[in-house]
Amino acid sequence: MAKMKKAPRPKAETPKGFRDYFGVEVTERADMLHKIAGVYHQYGFDALETSAVETVEALGKFLPDVDRPNEGVFAWQEADEDGAGDWMALRYDLTAPLARVYAQHRNDLPTPYRRYAMGPVWRNEKPGPGRFRQFYQCDADTVGTASMAADAEICAMLADTLEAVGIPRGDYVVRVNNRKVLNGVLEVMGLEEGETRDAVLRTIDKFDKVGEAGVRELLGKGRLDASGAFIDGVALSDDQAGPVLGFLTSKSNEASETTSNLRQAVGSSQMGLEGVQELETIVNLLVAQGYGPDRIVIDPSVVRGLGYYTGPVYEAELTFEIHDEKGRKRQFGSVAGGGRYDDLVKRFTGQAVPATGVSIGVDRLLAALREKGRIGGMVEGPVVVTVMDRDRMADYQAMVAELRQAGIRAEVYLGNPKNFGNQLKYADRRGSPVAVIEGGDEKEKGIIQIKDLILGAKIAESATLEEWKERPSQFEVPRDQLVNKVKDILDGQGK
Amino acid sequence: MAKMKKAPRPKAETPKGFRDYFGVEVTERADMLHKIAGVYHQYGFDALETSAVETVEALGKFLPDVDRPNEGVFAWQEADEDGAGDWMALRYDLTAPLARVYAQHRNDLPTPYRRYAMGPVWRNEKPGPGRFRQFYQCDADTVGTASMAADAEICAMLADTLEAVGIPRGDYVVRVNNRKVLNGVLEVMGLEEGETRDAVLRTIDKFDKVGEAGVRELLGKGRLDASGAFIDGVALSDDQAGPVLGFLTSKSNEASETTSNLRQAVGSSQMGLEGVQELETIVNLLVAQGYGPDRIVIDPSVVRGLGYYTGPVYEAELTFEIHDEKGRKRQFGSVAGGGRYDDLVKRFTGQAVPATGVSIGVDRLLAALREKGRIGGMVEGPVVVTVMDRDRMADYQAMVAELRQAGIRAEVYLGNPKNFGNQLKYADRRGSPVAVIEGGDEKEKGIIQIKDLILGAKIAESATLEEWKERPSQFEVPRDQLVNKVKDILDGQGK
Repeated sequence: MAKMKKAPRPKAETPKGFRDYFGVEVTERADMLHKIAGVYHQYGFDALETSAVETVEALGKFLPDVDRPNEGVFAWQEADEDGAGDWMALRYDLTAPLARVYAQHRNDLPTPYRRYAMGPVWRNEKPGPGRFRQFYQCDADTVGTASMAADAEICAMLADTLEAVGIPRGDYVVRVNNRKVLNGVLEVMGLEEGETRDAVLRTIDKFDKVGEAGVRELLGKGRLDASGAFIDGVALSDDQAGPVLGFLTSKSNEASETTSNLRQAVGSSQMGLEGVQELETIVNLLVAQGYGPDRIVIDPSVVRGLGYYTGPVYEAELTFEIHDEKGRKRQFGSVAGGGRYDDLVKRFTGQAVPATGVSIGVDRLLAALREKGRIGGMVEGPVVVTVMDRDRMADYQAMVAELRQAGIRAEVYLGNPKNFGNQLKYADRRGSPVAVIEGGDEKEKGIIQIKDLILGAKIAESATLEEWKERPSQFEVPRDQLVNKVKDILDGQGK
Repeated sequence: MAKMKKAPRPKAETPKGFRDYFGVEVTERADMLHKIAGVYHQYGFDALETSAVETVEALGKFLPDVDRPNEGVFAWQEADEDGAGDWMALRYDLTAPLARVYAQHRNDLPTPYRRYAMGPVWRNEKPGPGRFRQFYQCDADTVGTASMAADAEICAMLADTLEAVGIPRGDYVVRVNNRKVLNGVLEVMGLEEGETRDAVLRTIDKFDKVGEAGVRELLGKGRLDASGAFIDGVALSDDQAGPVLGFLTSKSNEASETTSNLRQAVGSSQMGLEGVQELETIVNLLVAQGYGPDRIVIDPSVVRGLGYYTGPVYEAELTFEIHDEKGRKRQFGSVAGGGRYDDLVKRFTGQAVPATGVSIGVDRLLAALREKGRIGGMVEGPVVVTVMDRDRMADYQAMVAELRQAGIRAEVYLGNPKNFGNQLKYADRRGSPVAVIEGGDEKEKGIIQIKDLILGAKIAESATLEEWKERPSQFEVPRDQLVNKVKDILDGQGK
């Protein structure tokens, strides 16, 4: 008999484009989601959790194709009795499942239906640095009402949410625009459809980067970009480019001035006028609730997902500066966005159902909070009770039980206790604030040794500082003072 | 040109075997996971979140097979440039990803590594009533130590966790056994391997159902089951069956008596003796920390996943009675289980790494708490501010803003306000405790109407009860008393 070939060992690797999250990375995100859910709940939004898997049919957008079914989504075909079943896929956002749920359960759901959802979504895209194929979204949508009050409410809620997770007022702004205004501008320009219109839209999208003069050039003959390359322009005349520039530069500190500028930009366009009025309604509702321009502003340069949205669009931007990879200062930028969309449920039912909603980029928001030092400062390591005598494990376990009962995170060292240095190295790797030691001698005398590891590390770092040297980092206390002494040290470290 | 055929509308359906979770179903689970994470954290366990997707290679267990790759897992092949890339799959539990993570990051992780993980897992199985293809698991494992203290710790933590989520002491028991003891019993019977051994194992698994006499019959000639069918026995002699029965009936109220019975059952088996000693170590450690037989017991009938575990196994069982679908009383049963396994990381590294861990069946535990009425009693609907005059939406929005600032969940009705009855029906569907009404007359007089909907519903239900009738369920209060009055009503309802 031939010898069985031994299977090669599998590689221990995260699949390409995916990553693992450890410790505080997980708990900080969980805390943030918890806070966001609290605000959403307060606003009357109900939780919804759909499964990660949907039929490709229900997801829409991507059609099953036997040769290459995975374009954009992770998809597979179910194996039926006769071999070929339905195509399934991982959700790529939280909106498509909402549309399916609303179409499926609309008779049992309240109308309007306010729902929030949070969880991972998956994109079958080429992974890149910092770009992952699984990431978290956190959405709130109101389905079944065309009222601008629903859009205003979501903008207010977005502002409240940012403050609830730790972005102070002044460090963010919610910018609101309306798709209809831009459509109106394009209408008065005679650009309802076609290549020129698309080129104009792409140019508008560059306003933040190249400014008014840049857009003027790009709408006209073209422009030399920073790299020295010449970018062809859209070749509009100055007259034609006028409404676009009027639109883009209509923003003022006074909302009423902005809307009056926009009114001019849309001229006689009925659709454009409707958009301006919707913006006015939203701003009036927000001001009545105390959300002024320090938190929410009309900003015509917001042009997100224009093919998708049908009315108001909104975006939350963090306004403080950070240093990018190359050490240059820049604004942190967008952390959330959304708007009104009306056709999502229609795919299923044939009826248009108005809806509006926002999606928060949880991971970007976490990155912002870390950048500002608002989270991530403390790794809350456990108190480590070391093992001096492996036969007295029960004694050490009793110590951690006492500490935990006092609300202190604590554990016994469970590795090989032979080498005491390894135990302290372990405590160091765990970020432990305190180590507890009870050898045979201590046990006999009824005492324990308590090491302040944070202080110890500071002393080790700056051994020349006399003030550190004079402070002891190890204390001998009676066994029954364990909890009190550890508490004292932890309280002192917290200062 | 031929007319384009219109695509049929997609079905709005959850894929087979998956389901949606609404409102409190989501928040109650999130609350429970939060509480469990709190206990795990306290014990020094660190969070780990891996992605839902792993390579099939890393998951092991299931090998890619082009004809039928989906056996047990949801799997698909990545589309590479040249067409055929790696096989990927959704994780089917949280242990296989832990093994991959530990093998991949072992140089950066502390040893031992205590980690917890919570999240959905996916099984490509035939769905059945109450059996879903996506469900939550919540695991804690200690990797890298052979110490029985690790197993004892997890048993204690499991008991603490059950109490933390609302299962009172006395309503649960953590049952501990050791795989080596059973192996020892089989060894003294001369049943190391083969069909007879497997039949004996299957019979042991029925002990809970058929009891000592039933097992005796099944180990011997066979037995008539409740349906009248005759089940063939294993055909052991009485002498041969003795150690099995001795093992199964060794449980006593005193742990020391149980272990002494087990010692007899394993006779001269070295492995069996080792198992008994491990159980003794675990019990001694637990008793030293105050975990007595009211919480944790040795129970030889615990026989979970025997092919997988290599030492201690444990299981948490809820002991209170519930009524099953047919109205019969039965014990709620197991909600968590785990044990020691040593070969998981070896697949990757070639080195055996000892590990022990537990998995909590979150959905079963939630079902138990609902059964006991400890959660799910209150649907916390929002206060609904009705819209009497759609031009005064800003007024209504200001009211909900006030209520929210006082910590009260509140929303404005955003449907079509024409029919006031629909607004109250909406409030009813939302489970609203209170509705607020401010028409033109009220506005002029500076008052509002506040309806106690819970009380209103009670009055409607039992209209004959005079005591209800006399209590008004609608109040007229000055506008500036909005928050106070709503608070009063909510406080009263809470009683």
